[in-house]
Amino acid sequence: MRWADGFIAVDWGTTNRRAYLIGSDGRLSDEMEDDQGILAVGKGGFDRAVAEIKGRLGDRPLLMAGMIGSNRGWVEAPYAPCPAGLPELAASLKWVVRDHIAIVPGVAYDSGDAADVMRGEEVQMLGAFADGMIPPDALVCHPGTHNKWVKMEDGRIASFRTIMTGEMFNLLREHSILADLLQEPANTGAAFEAGVRRGLEGDDLTAELFSVRARVLLGKRERSDAASYTSGLLIGTDLRIGLRSAPDGEVVVMGRPELTGLFAAALRLAGHEAREVDGEAAFLAGVRHLAELVQ
Amino acid sequence: MRWADGFIAVDWGTTNRRAYLIGSDGRLSDEMEDDQGILAVGKGGFDRAVAEIKGRLGDRPLLMAGMIGSNRGWVEAPYAPCPAGLPELAASLKWVVRDHIAIVPGVAYDSGDAADVMRGEEVQMLGAFADGMIPPDALVCHPGTHNKWVKMEDGRIASFRTIMTGEMFNLLREHSILADLLQEPANTGAAFEAGVRRGLEGDDLTAELFSVRARVLLGKRERSDAASYTSGLLIGTDLRIGLRSAPDGEVVVMGRPELTGLFAAALRLAGHEAREVDGEAAFLAGVRHLAELVQ
Repeated sequence: MRWADGFIAVDWGTTNRRAYLIGSDGRLSDEMEDDQGILAVGKGGFDRAVAEIKGRLGDRPLLMAGMIGSNRGWVEAPYAPCPAGLPELAASLKWVVRDHIAIVPGVAYDSGDAADVMRGEEVQMLGAFADGMIPPDALVCHPGTHNKWVKMEDGRIASFRTIMTGEMFNLLREHSILADLLQEPANTGAAFEAGVRRGLEGDDLTAELFSVRARVLLGKRERSDAASYTSGLLIGTDLRIGLRSAPDGEVVVMGRPELTGLFAAALRLAGHEAREVDGEAAFLAGVRHLAELVQ
Repeated sequence: MRWADGFIAVDWGTTNRRAYLIGSDGRLSDEMEDDQGILAVGKGGFDRAVAEIKGRLGDRPLLMAGMIGSNRGWVEAPYAPCPAGLPELAASLKWVVRDHIAIVPGVAYDSGDAADVMRGEEVQMLGAFADGMIPPDALVCHPGTHNKWVKMEDGRIASFRTIMTGEMFNLLREHSILADLLQEPANTGAAFEAGVRRGLEGDDLTAELFSVRARVLLGKRERSDAASYTSGLLIGTDLRIGLRSAPDGEVVVMGRPELTGLFAAALRLAGHEAREVDGEAAFLAGVRHLAELVQ
């Protein structure tokens, strides 16, 4: 089988892509990252964009995950329904070129009035379980533009909910009346902690956001604390919603270390243990196991 | 006194300005409106911008309110503290040209950790009271980019809170992942009502917003309902926060009729009587009473 000779795994998102060459021994032997996310490539540009990856990493089979399988990506890969484990994802791969180029389906949660979707995070979650980085039953928080709270049961994604925490912070920083106050980098000091506590307790985010500005105008708070406070407020609000499904116990925080660090700090303030898992390591575990399943 | 011969009142906001010529009989005799808000005029441009108003409406004394008195406006007019009535505003006018051009101060609420500010709405609230359009004790909701919930006591602004409802909807419609779903005009049909109810009951706005998109992707909701539902969701969330200070009874809804209509409909769903007051009529009442106080 050609996959046993090694393959390329691509985590292809909206604004970035990361590609990894996995050798026949299962080890990472080369990688690349650039800003050619699906929006930059655009419809009609994916053949060339894939050729570029092969040109840099070698002519190997490709396993791709993320927004590349969305209706704005290359070829739409229909969502696998919850509960979804690695076998279900492997069985629902969308083959762009038979036996050679596949897109991992996203996962959908559809129950009563609840509806949610993910693309890309599922490979990390299930890879982390398959490699023993997390237990088969776990509450996983995956911070990002669209933060995911995922209930894992028996090593499968049982249900999940998305909170627009990262996107909300970006909207406020780039386009809102708070923009000039949010240009400083956020850190986990006292202002962040005050924001987290306010978000955990309060349920009036859209009012509290305006207060950030009013307190600075009236000289009650330092301008330089506004970004950290607002970051804490949004993350605290996120935890208040996400923790409802598991009011106590350990939470796995998976993703990019700079984000998992912020969320882990906030979780500890909320009285929870937080286990950080590197999202890239989990992604590589996931694609390795998927490649075994398709051979 | 020159003010008794008539004057020009200007409601000068961030993106628009409206100017009204009030005759010696107290009646509105001419008016103008354009897009020369303070951001379009910019520092250094206000002498010319005021001359333009006089050129169109006549050489009369000017009474101006709104963001013209902010740190991005012409001359900063320090906030009057709560409780603030018309006499307090009149006593704190910022004179740009002595006896001839004045800016009405905004109002600040500063109590414990709470902090809030307004510029412009105060003239409407206090004018409406002075003209008997609202009682001396009232809860006033003033929808807009930054929605204000104001407690009036004894005809003065006692306290208030700002909720970023209008700005949030604009951010989502113009810049977020929901943008393509929110281009339809919102109306007060069944989708709007479902959104209002969800906002009144739920306290997970940042999660529910993503569900709007997921439900459309999974075919559970009509794409054409997304804007009305999201508008209802944000307004219901707004009411949930704003009504805390007065869980039952009549609410005065003041402002532009297209917005007061949406909020009044939502208030009725929440079991409240809503009395709509036209913001422009209230503004004109406010400036007339202020002009009498400065003579």
